[in-house]
Amino acid sequence: MKEKYLVADEWNIIEEGWDPARQEGSESIFSLGNGHMGQRANFEEQYTGKHLQGSYIAGIYYPDKTRVGWWKNGYPDYFAKVLNSVNWIGINLSIDGEALDLAKVKVREFRRILNMKTGTLSRSFTAELHGGRELKVETLRFISMKRKEIGAIRYSLTPLNFEGSISYTPYLDFDVVNHDSNYDEQFWEGVEEHVGTQKAVLSARTKKLDFHVAAAMRYEFFEDGKHITLYPEMEKRARYAQNTFAATVEEGKTYHLYKYAAVVSSLHHTKAALISVADNLASDAMNDGFRQLLDEHTTDWAARWEKSDIMIEGDVEAQQGIRFNIFQLTQTYTGEDARLNIGPKGFTGEKYGGSTYWDTEAYCLPFYMASAGQEVAKNLLVYRYNHLPKAIENAEKLGFTGGAALYPMVTMNGEECHNEWEITFEEIHRNGAIAYAIYNYIRYFGDETYLADYGLEVLIAIARFWAQRVNWSTAKQQYVMLGVTGPNEYENNVNNNWYTSYIAQWCLSYALESIAQVEELDKTRLTEIFDKTAFDREKESEQWQHIIHKLYLPYDEAQGIFLQQENYLDKEQRTAEDLDPGERPINQHWSWDRILRSCFIKQADVLQGLYFFEEDFDRETVRRNFDFYEPRTLHESSLSPCVHVVLAAYLDKMEKAYELYLRTSRLDLDDYNREVHEGLHITSMAGTWLSVVEGFGGMRVRNGALHFTPKLPKGWHKLSFKIAFGGTTLLCSFGRENHMVKNLGVQKVKVAINGKEAQLV
Amino acid sequence: MKEKYLVADEWNIIEEGWDPARQEGSESIFSLGNGHMGQRANFEEQYTGKHLQGSYIAGIYYPDKTRVGWWKNGYPDYFAKVLNSVNWIGINLSIDGEALDLAKVKVREFRRILNMKTGTLSRSFTAELHGGRELKVETLRFISMKRKEIGAIRYSLTPLNFEGSISYTPYLDFDVVNHDSNYDEQFWEGVEEHVGTQKAVLSARTKKLDFHVAAAMRYEFFEDGKHITLYPEMEKRARYAQNTFAATVEEGKTYHLYKYAAVVSSLHHTKAALISVADNLASDAMNDGFRQLLDEHTTDWAARWEKSDIMIEGDVEAQQGIRFNIFQLTQTYTGEDARLNIGPKGFTGEKYGGSTYWDTEAYCLPFYMASAGQEVAKNLLVYRYNHLPKAIENAEKLGFTGGAALYPMVTMNGEECHNEWEITFEEIHRNGAIAYAIYNYIRYFGDETYLADYGLEVLIAIARFWAQRVNWSTAKQQYVMLGVTGPNEYENNVNNNWYTSYIAQWCLSYALESIAQVEELDKTRLTEIFDKTAFDREKESEQWQHIIHKLYLPYDEAQGIFLQQENYLDKEQRTAEDLDPGERPINQHWSWDRILRSCFIKQADVLQGLYFFEEDFDRETVRRNFDFYEPRTLHESSLSPCVHVVLAAYLDKMEKAYELYLRTSRLDLDDYNREVHEGLHITSMAGTWLSVVEGFGGMRVRNGALHFTPKLPKGWHKLSFKIAFGGTTLLCSFGRENHMVKNLGVQKVKVAINGKEAQLV
Repeated sequence: MKEKYLVADEWNIIEEGWDPARQEGSESIFSLGNGHMGQRANFEEQYTGKHLQGSYIAGIYYPDKTRVGWWKNGYPDYFAKVLNSVNWIGINLSIDGEALDLAKVKVREFRRILNMKTGTLSRSFTAELHGGRELKVETLRFISMKRKEIGAIRYSLTPLNFEGSISYTPYLDFDVVNHDSNYDEQFWEGVEEHVGTQKAVLSARTKKLDFHVAAAMRYEFFEDGKHITLYPEMEKRARYAQNTFAATVEEGKTYHLYKYAAVVSSLHHTKAALISVADNLASDAMNDGFRQLLDEHTTDWAARWEKSDIMIEGDVEAQQGIRFNIFQLTQTYTGEDARLNIGPKGFTGEKYGGSTYWDTEAYCLPFYMASAGQEVAKNLLVYRYNHLPKAIENAEKLGFTGGAALYPMVTMNGEECHNEWEITFEEIHRNGAIAYAIYNYIRYFGDETYLADYGLEVLIAIARFWAQRVNWSTAKQQYVMLGVTGPNEYENNVNNNWYTSYIAQWCLSYALESIAQVEELDKTRLTEIFDKTAFDREKESEQWQHIIHKLYLPYDEAQGIFLQQENYLDKEQRTAEDLDPGERPINQHWSWDRILRSCFIKQADVLQGLYFFEEDFDRETVRRNFDFYEPRTLHESSLSPCVHVVLAAYLDKMEKAYELYLRTSRLDLDDYNREVHEGLHITSMAGTWLSVVEGFGGMRVRNGALHFTPKLPKGWHKLSFKIAFGGTTLLCSFGRENHMVKNLGVQKVKVAINGKEAQLV
Repeated sequence: MKEKYLVADEWNIIEEGWDPARQEGSESIFSLGNGHMGQRANFEEQYTGKHLQGSYIAGIYYPDKTRVGWWKNGYPDYFAKVLNSVNWIGINLSIDGEALDLAKVKVREFRRILNMKTGTLSRSFTAELHGGRELKVETLRFISMKRKEIGAIRYSLTPLNFEGSISYTPYLDFDVVNHDSNYDEQFWEGVEEHVGTQKAVLSARTKKLDFHVAAAMRYEFFEDGKHITLYPEMEKRARYAQNTFAATVEEGKTYHLYKYAAVVSSLHHTKAALISVADNLASDAMNDGFRQLLDEHTTDWAARWEKSDIMIEGDVEAQQGIRFNIFQLTQTYTGEDARLNIGPKGFTGEKYGGSTYWDTEAYCLPFYMASAGQEVAKNLLVYRYNHLPKAIENAEKLGFTGGAALYPMVTMNGEECHNEWEITFEEIHRNGAIAYAIYNYIRYFGDETYLADYGLEVLIAIARFWAQRVNWSTAKQQYVMLGVTGPNEYENNVNNNWYTSYIAQWCLSYALESIAQVEELDKTRLTEIFDKTAFDREKESEQWQHIIHKLYLPYDEAQGIFLQQENYLDKEQRTAEDLDPGERPINQHWSWDRILRSCFIKQADVLQGLYFFEEDFDRETVRRNFDFYEPRTLHESSLSPCVHVVLAAYLDKMEKAYELYLRTSRLDLDDYNREVHEGLHITSMAGTWLSVVEGFGGMRVRNGALHFTPKLPKGWHKLSFKIAFGGTTLLCSFGRENHMVKNLGVQKVKVAINGKEAQLV
């Protein structure tokens, strides 16, 4: 099933040997990014083989007109798509008239390395050209973590056995398309193009939303160490600009082209200034030089690793896997800008449109809380706070009233983008995850002011939604929640999905508790919130209480399990073991109706609830449900195994935990699902982090203290990680026998290991 | 709500006065057809105002590539679309250089008449041209019922106050598009074009399926009665050919252009012969002349009316309504060709692709049985028999095995076309209607040989589907039917829809009975069928029996009603009266999820079952269910009211019956749903017939006899209709007091009125 071609290494992802069939997958895996922009590992030089060109800028998207077969009332008008943006890496090469193109030349000693410690992508190979000429190529590229709008490339050529003329064409290109455009539209319109000697600058605007982006380049050329003066030809056309120069090259000498690119957008600068900002930034970058840029960049990465690294001793592949996940998560979101969020594929592909899903709240938040700190985590929450008015509009569009909010399933700017009714309108549990994230954040940081400043408004609007979304069943004499889709998307339009109803009930309780809490903290602010939200405290509180007490939650007495939804047990009960491996994944082999009728589960559903609300249930209840649901869960969502790992470790099922850990930690590196060419599973990488820290580390926050219950998989000698908590950083190190937590800062924090207060060294 | 602009008349549909806003609607209403081809009431002359050009040929369709937002396994590759075909009516006119175009000239005394008795469309108006010139225009058009491939037009002009030159351009045009093309493709490719003096012939082929169609025209020109020799200019280009000639016209004289067109297809002729066949037919038509063609045509219509007319005395609008329905049904399907069927819009628009739905079996069959006779009705059944192999393939595609058949929801050639999972995969009750039609046909005609020849194979395959589609619920200790959509499409993916489960159970029983019946009739044939279907009699019969006895059918003891689906009573129970009229139709005002969660019903569901299986239930059971469901049914499907009319009349709820009859009988004439511009609701017109004959006439077939329980709505003096039954035709005439059934043939039949054997006069 999995595809193993990468060399195991603790800090590097290494591909050896050239196989064009792997190019699209490697383009995803070796992606670079810095939270502001991202770039798939496309080649600098021309490549006519199959590949997916991808350069993305956070927050720059296109509202692509919705495409459906049959329209349903309430569908959104567009699906937001992350835009394939300017190609700033391009450097075309021609050696005595022969294009350097890996699809056309013979390639030897190909090696591609993603150095995760330094955040750099390097590539080296020898090209055999016509007439036996051999050219050694080495490239090094990074997108600066320090200067968010700068990327830099060193492109080195060494003629091994010939002399001749090499023509270089560094360029900038906005004439790019999105592979996933609904109606084959091009999304960019050129605005300005300027080209000069060893420089160019372009700007373009997106259709509809009128985002403006400018890109500038500078470059310089060296023979061995010697700077060469150039007299390039200049060329420009709509959305494109280039320089071309030829260099006479000698055998055995190495020629370096340094290309510096700046990419800036109207999200951060005025439109009028974009051209000059980009030009100045590129110019500054070249003046400061490649070495200085690289130093800044690696220093920045070192600081980030200092806070976020996880070390696994005794299992190189596991070590490589977890670092890869942390590396990609850090590249995707750095948390300076509350307008941004984490797309399921980050900046590594077009799929899922780079938009925000409930993945952020349900899976990603803990990683950023513990590794990137409070401000970054808070920005993820404020993102949703800022979208509250749109969430209220969204609910109104569906017929809800009085300030009820339904957050979108998929969004870029707060508006719903998704257009499958069973998901868009019914997968409403996402509202619960957004409330849970507020709870989770406050529990972790103890930041109760967040509730008063932002959280309570969101909680009230979400609670109002749930209060209207249930209805009183005369037949049951209870409230019911009809027509929902739970986290398990292999069921649609079911009644009384346990997870959804439970989290709805919890939201109502938490909103009421939060009101009391804010009342205690800041009465004036509470009044302000009540005024702003036109909250009728007596009436709404009473109604919420009634729903909390009378909400139907399906349960099977005989087996002592919560039912995924009412009547789940009417299904033919089979387990994953009963399936022919040739039928899996069923989402590729079974018709949709067959999937829907089966008892098989795509991703944790009841167990997702037990994971979130572990404290509400005794361990035996968790065990009964795990034993029932795990065999029925196919993990055909990348977001599924991590939750099962955490629960399995909690239940001391270490073999199961490790088996599922393997599925999640190297999902993309080993391409388990045969889809890595579309991009990386960024949000599920945060799930891998959960598996390690909450699963094998057993980390929990309880009453302001950090608790650990370390349980290492077989073969692991030691597991260490850093955790930002309580204003300090903890180095946690768990061996097979000895456990240690070291406070790297000065702030005192409470830590317990296996239930006992830990010795902080 | 409704739009009343047509003049009430017993035999004619009359539009008076020109209103361009009505053009698209009138184009639908005044459509002509003859079962082989159909033509919307587009104008012959150029019309640049908003309209929908539509010329259709039965059985000529295009498999348009499926368009969806999100693909689901099992979706078909294409949606079959009836093709907008050759424009054969076109005659462009120019008066002293000014185009005759109703969007540009001033129009007086506009009158359009559909004469339903003769099957002709006439139009007259006076056009005021530049400089005050007045031109009287009169047109008469028909599509021959006798010569299926011929259409004819008489186009008459009278200059009222001027003399001048009129240029005529009769043409044929294959350069046409489908408004509903998924990807803006043109579906026709030209093959040949020939043009001569006063004639032209074209052929074209459809992409993908390579249907070939040829069209030929002839025309002649008369001044008052005098034939004029012409010297036209000829012109052709790809997919188009025309003649142009100018005539000097004098004030007060009338000029007639007669245009004869033949349209033939590769469904009925070899491709090589098409051009000559079309040319010869057009030539023959002109040689025989307009008068003879019209005589043949009206004679044919007279014979059809002789068999199918319904007369309502005392209610002109009701009379006009029912005749309009019969007229359109007769135009749509004449039953000579078992490859054809009845599209929901017939030949009056593009919507629903002209494809076959369960409408045919559930609503249309009774009309054709009673009005068009056994052979026509049988061809409707044979259509599905011929599609059985495709239905088995369709079931296999969804994971069913062993010769189980799932007939498609929408089809042209037996392959599924529809692509909404909740309909395509789940609205499986259609299988039941196809079995029921076999039962209904045999009950009506007593033709048991049909079972042996065709029916049983279909019944076995359908029974096999149901046997696999249910599953044993350990929880219920019964079989359950999960994940279905019933006739009420305002619910999706429900469990245990009563209608679906009941008809499934009935199918299993009927299949077993039919086996026994064929065994009695023809043991050899039974063995043949068992061999062909690999039927394991012992095992499969036993399994079917078990399911019949142990199938779960949701029922509410307290209210004594069948539940539309399990847990239907968990919904908030409201009635249509609780709705704000401004919210209706809810399918235009509510979001889809809100519709799904509501208790409101789009069309008869439980009541559809009680209608089909009336004999299985006592009247009180029908009454309880009617009283419960009728107030919750919004009739937002055109197929709903008719079933309610029949049941309401059965329950002596005559006011309700008449109220709902109004909704169905003049649905299109008065455009209740504001959608007549898209085409007519052809299949629901058969429902109107049911309302009258089975509702107000109370007609039932019981034990080979025809029973009537006449109940006339207030205001109706007399209801009369003809019924083909038992090899004869009956004229049934029911007054407020006196009832009469007259046998117009010689074959003896058993008839009862109000339970008593009737006097046949």
